[in-house]
Amino acid sequence: MKALGPIPPGFENDGEGRLLIGGHDVETLVEHAGGTPLFVYDSERIALQVRRLRTAFPELGLHYAVKANPYAPLLEAMANLVDGFDVASSGELGKVAHLGLPISFAGPGKRSPEIETAIRAGITINLESEGEAERALAICKREELEAKLAVRVNPPFGLKGSGQKMGGIPSQFGIDHDRVPALVRRIVEAGANWQGLHIFAGSQALQADALIELQRETVALAASICEEAGQVPPHVNLGGGFGIPYFSKDEPLDVEAVGESLAKTLTERPKILRDTKFAIELGRWLVGEAGVYLTRIVDKKESRGKTFLVTDGGLQHQLAASGNFGQLLRRNYPVAIASRMGAEAEEEVTITGCLCTPLDLLADEAILPRAEVGDLVAIFCAGAYGLSASPTGFLNQPMAREMLV
Amino acid sequence: MKALGPIPPGFENDGEGRLLIGGHDVETLVEHAGGTPLFVYDSERIALQVRRLRTAFPELGLHYAVKANPYAPLLEAMANLVDGFDVASSGELGKVAHLGLPISFAGPGKRSPEIETAIRAGITINLESEGEAERALAICKREELEAKLAVRVNPPFGLKGSGQKMGGIPSQFGIDHDRVPALVRRIVEAGANWQGLHIFAGSQALQADALIELQRETVALAASICEEAGQVPPHVNLGGGFGIPYFSKDEPLDVEAVGESLAKTLTERPKILRDTKFAIELGRWLVGEAGVYLTRIVDKKESRGKTFLVTDGGLQHQLAASGNFGQLLRRNYPVAIASRMGAEAEEEVTITGCLCTPLDLLADEAILPRAEVGDLVAIFCAGAYGLSASPTGFLNQPMAREMLV
Repeated sequence: MKALGPIPPGFENDGEGRLLIGGHDVETLVEHAGGTPLFVYDSERIALQVRRLRTAFPELGLHYAVKANPYAPLLEAMANLVDGFDVASSGELGKVAHLGLPISFAGPGKRSPEIETAIRAGITINLESEGEAERALAICKREELEAKLAVRVNPPFGLKGSGQKMGGIPSQFGIDHDRVPALVRRIVEAGANWQGLHIFAGSQALQADALIELQRETVALAASICEEAGQVPPHVNLGGGFGIPYFSKDEPLDVEAVGESLAKTLTERPKILRDTKFAIELGRWLVGEAGVYLTRIVDKKESRGKTFLVTDGGLQHQLAASGNFGQLLRRNYPVAIASRMGAEAEEEVTITGCLCTPLDLLADEAILPRAEVGDLVAIFCAGAYGLSASPTGFLNQPMAREMLV
Repeated sequence: MKALGPIPPGFENDGEGRLLIGGHDVETLVEHAGGTPLFVYDSERIALQVRRLRTAFPELGLHYAVKANPYAPLLEAMANLVDGFDVASSGELGKVAHLGLPISFAGPGKRSPEIETAIRAGITINLESEGEAERALAICKREELEAKLAVRVNPPFGLKGSGQKMGGIPSQFGIDHDRVPALVRRIVEAGANWQGLHIFAGSQALQADALIELQRETVALAASICEEAGQVPPHVNLGGGFGIPYFSKDEPLDVEAVGESLAKTLTERPKILRDTKFAIELGRWLVGEAGVYLTRIVDKKESRGKTFLVTDGGLQHQLAASGNFGQLLRRNYPVAIASRMGAEAEEEVTITGCLCTPLDLLADEAILPRAEVGDLVAIFCAGAYGLSASPTGFLNQPMAREMLV
């Protein structure tokens, strides 16, 4: 028996054992969508997260990181909730260009035509290297354009306990902090419209203390860089890094504690940042828990004493839940039999997808209500880095459907 | 400094430092394809592998496992080289249905309409469970059809040293060997056209000894199952499992030794298998080394003493080379600067893709010839489980091109 991750709070059932998402039972949702596998995203849960965030961080701008979930109806809903979109490619840019919000564009390896498009569109470019800055400035000179340029900083510190450390180490992201003042001066002197700094040091943090310390360090670093550059930054993007619980024993992040501490940090901020607008950039924390992946049981079989539920879904849609093609330490996501909510957990099962690889695992040795062929399985925490971060073409299985309710 | 995997033998350069693939230099290939990132598959290398295999296993049928690489022109070329296709979904079935070779269909979680389509199309179904068998037989009865049914066996032994063990353990694949005789009798008595057995116990093996032992055990198991069932099997698919070297210190598989030993095993096979046709099923070994992923350097930057080459490709096309979203023990694939072949390796670089994640790593701390923005990078061993096994939609980067030469 292996533990399951915690099901996000607030998921009810319809009294007959069917999971409700956004007030709709899963069989009705599947029928409307036309079948399984199906990702359902609950717009009300997303709006609730945004409200919670706004309450905890009343003075901050809020950007949505499109890479977390680029499903078009979700982006449309998000456009009514946040203050800007952060994109990581010109493909993502194209997905939000019509939504009317400010956009910033980060990511290493921007091609020159992408940079030119972004400049012409009036989008803020978060510069990832001196070379990229020079390419942007050369385009401005040649085409007589004014670019909105921000500098992404590789800070000397990282996010403690972060799933993905992105600061305090050599990195393809941003410019080492000690070289940033010279680059800021260079940009301003070249006549570009300097937008400020972007400092992103990690992701998927569940420890409030770690984020509090990081944000304090980030504000101090922004101030010292700007003092050295002799420039007041219009904007500072503090990054994000807010995590959600995926696995057994994960505790949710105390967002209110982080907000309270950041408010204090900002009240006491150095003078050079007095008129600066601060923003945070969130993806996973806003949408991750709002998504559920539904897949139907096609076969139930016994093998050498173990019971397998084989579904019509799999790692081709939810790679992270499967363990990313064979992690050494695979752990179960939160999973339920969506047709038998509330029933007694009495059977140990291993839930697989339909791919011809032993790595296609959705839950391993989980204790769940007794399920049969035809029942629906729900994988929670499927709202971020789910379908778009999975190898959808692998083994040519049918594409998953998506739906915003 | 971290070691690189071994570049497959036989890759030359054009005398001016450009890598040749199938006799064409990489810049010409990229120009013909319309740009980077680009997968190039060398049809002559694939044909050479097939010839080598045919020589080593003169008595065996050879099937191609479509999942390894389902690129349509490659499948067309393969149709002239092998005796059958093994598919793992009805999507894959659709990709080879027009090519005129025998097809078999394996994989857990086959939906009933897929089973019915396969029966009507005269395709051999490798049954993965008793439940699937009953569904197939019910379709035959209801629709008055005769199905070609083979039984996939979960053997009591596995492939030693295999990257992916698929036998000797509880598994979603096949039916535990001790229940197979009863199922064979059931199928035959129900009037289906029993095709024999499919026994697949692992993949990516580089040790000839392990495969030799496995094939010996597999033939013996097939005989004992058929004796107990009282049925002569028309076909036995011995599976595959032949690996290729990806990483430093990996040694290539001695295919000839495996073939020699299998010939002996088959000469001495039990009487019940005298008229049985044997086949092996290969994917990776046939096409893996024939593929090269080409991506262009967009940025070169320094960070805290480390040099980064940022390319226009990345894990969205070559997930396995990146380390599958954060393997604990990531190792470098074979990688070269495709514009500077034969030049002195003098610079330690980390090669990344263009995604906004630190996991997007193509080579870490590799010693390579000095490269500049505009140079091409080649990732070798990209012919199998490359583009089709990668999250191509992640971060909405442009799709990679593919080309068979």
